[in-house]
Amino acid sequence: MNITLENAEKMISAAKEKAVAINTKMNIAIVDAGANLVAFVRMDGAWLGSLDISIKKAKTARFFDMNTGSIGELSQPGGSLYNIEHSNGGLITFPGGIPIKNSNGEIIGAIGVSGSTVENDHAVAEAGISAL
Amino acid sequence: MNITLENAEKMISAAKEKAVAINTKMNIAIVDAGANLVAFVRMDGAWLGSLDISIKKAKTARFFDMNTGSIGELSQPGGSLYNIEHSNGGLITFPGGIPIKNSNGEIIGAIGVSGSTVENDHAVAEAGISAL
Amino acid sequence: MNITLENAEKMISAAKEKAVAINTKMNIAIVDAGANLVAFVRMDGAWLGSLDISIKKAKTARFFDMNTGSIGELSQPGGSLYNIEHSNGGLITFPGGIPIKNSNGEIIGAIGVSGSTVENDHAVAEAGISAL
Amino acid sequence: MNITLENAEKMISAAKEKAVAINTKMNIAIVDAGANLVAFVRMDGAWLGSLDISIKKAKTARFFDMNTGSIGELSQPGGSLYNIEHSNGGLITFPGGIPIKNSNGEIIGAIGVSGSTVENDHAVAEAGISAL
Repeated sequence: MNITLENAEKMISAAKEKAVAINTKMNIAIVDAGANLVAFVRMDGAWLGSLDISIKKAKTARFFDMNTGSIGELSQPGGSLYNIEHSNGGLITFPGGIPIKNSNGEIIGAIGVSGSTVENDHAVAEAGISAL
Repeated sequence: MNITLENAEKMISAAKEKAVAINTKMNIAIVDAGANLVAFVRMDGAWLGSLDISIKKAKTARFFDMNTGSIGELSQPGGSLYNIEHSNGGLITFPGGIPIKNSNGEIIGAIGVSGSTVENDHAVAEAGISAL
Repeated sequence: MNITLENAEKMISAAKEKAVAINTKMNIAIVDAGANLVAFVRMDGAWLGSLDISIKKAKTARFFDMNTGSIGELSQPGGSLYNIEHSNGGLITFPGGIPIKNSNGEIIGAIGVSGSTVENDHAVAEAGISAL
Repeated sequence: MNITLENAEKMISAAKEKAVAINTKMNIAIVDAGANLVAFVRMDGAWLGSLDISIKKAKTARFFDMNTGSIGELSQPGGSLYNIEHSNGGLITFPGGIPIKNSNGEIIGAIGVSGSTVENDHAVAEAGISAL
């Protein structure tokens, strides 16, 4: 139950379109159900540091089957998952990562976007999700 | 003075039973007195990201011979062990890791559980401890 | 298409039995189709260094969908895959890792065994495979 | 002087076409002049372990501005660059990585391909290069 490359490319295409529409330059990553990279693009001029962040967001979303921002709410000082980011070779727990589900509701991968505000990152990830 | 595989498997079996009883899917890891993995299981459908966290909880509990949650109380901003999670290749300091003692009170390993709320993680780890 | 924990435990049980039968002490690891750990045991007194090797063998077998020893034949000095071991955080390319297939011939994971000669390691891995 | 995403995607598209033509399933990575990933695809069913190898081949080709196979000739036992693979977080020095030049002959990135024999990997990388 893995996302296909064809669908991953559809998602990336839609995400890029959204990124252009809101005047941002994004790194966009798609992982499969095993949290392994399927497709990635870095738009011209996008932040270099967001390369790794976009991949980590996608992995994080699949690792815990939820939006990355939801984990970040629990990992704050005093929170129940404080400093969970030290696991799995580094998590990113602010918005921009979203699990991908098939038509049966099964999780088949995740998308991660980084390159602008977390609100924009999340919006571009959502645009990718909507393309499926 | 190390936990045996036989006892580690007893603990994992009891922990799995508890996990099922409270309707959770867990990653369960046991390390020995040297903080090296002895046994591990990931229940079907358990979070992928909890694999590494369960092992890190077990290691963390043995590294400092206390429950992981106790370390997390000291590692908060302003706390005496602030950001200790950066050591040892990454610690996990929220609940779910517990040292294992023999009948003489000597520490012979630790158990780490991850896959649900930290309360559930800790309860399943306790169920493992009680099996000895 | 992932191996279940129940089947992974069946395999480990059979592999342990074989290890005892040939008077060895083994580390035994099972990964799923995404190359993520599903189950692991280290028999009492087994080499500590074989812990990581058994996991790397299982991952290597799934990474390339073949027995680890087959890769080692190609990674020798002068071979076409010389020093491939530097990829993926470290591969192990001598015998002891074997892909796991379901009844349709699809690869659903891999087993890795380490703790004795590579011949014994492979034999114990085979015993695990035969249990399915 | 960096390859654009548009050109990277053209290269990947041509490389995928070649991969299909010769009946292989490839991981294909493009890095820029800074050796940072620009675009990546893993074809459905391609070896998981080739994900990292394709990226390392692209980086290696740009790190030293030559085909990866040329470095492998020097890194053999007794060779002048023996075990250079230990540097830079792991190099891959067998064929499949090729620098990308612009029309002035300046190197603007590199392509790395992995998923079959090294001859096929190199042929698919060449197909990508030819698309520019």
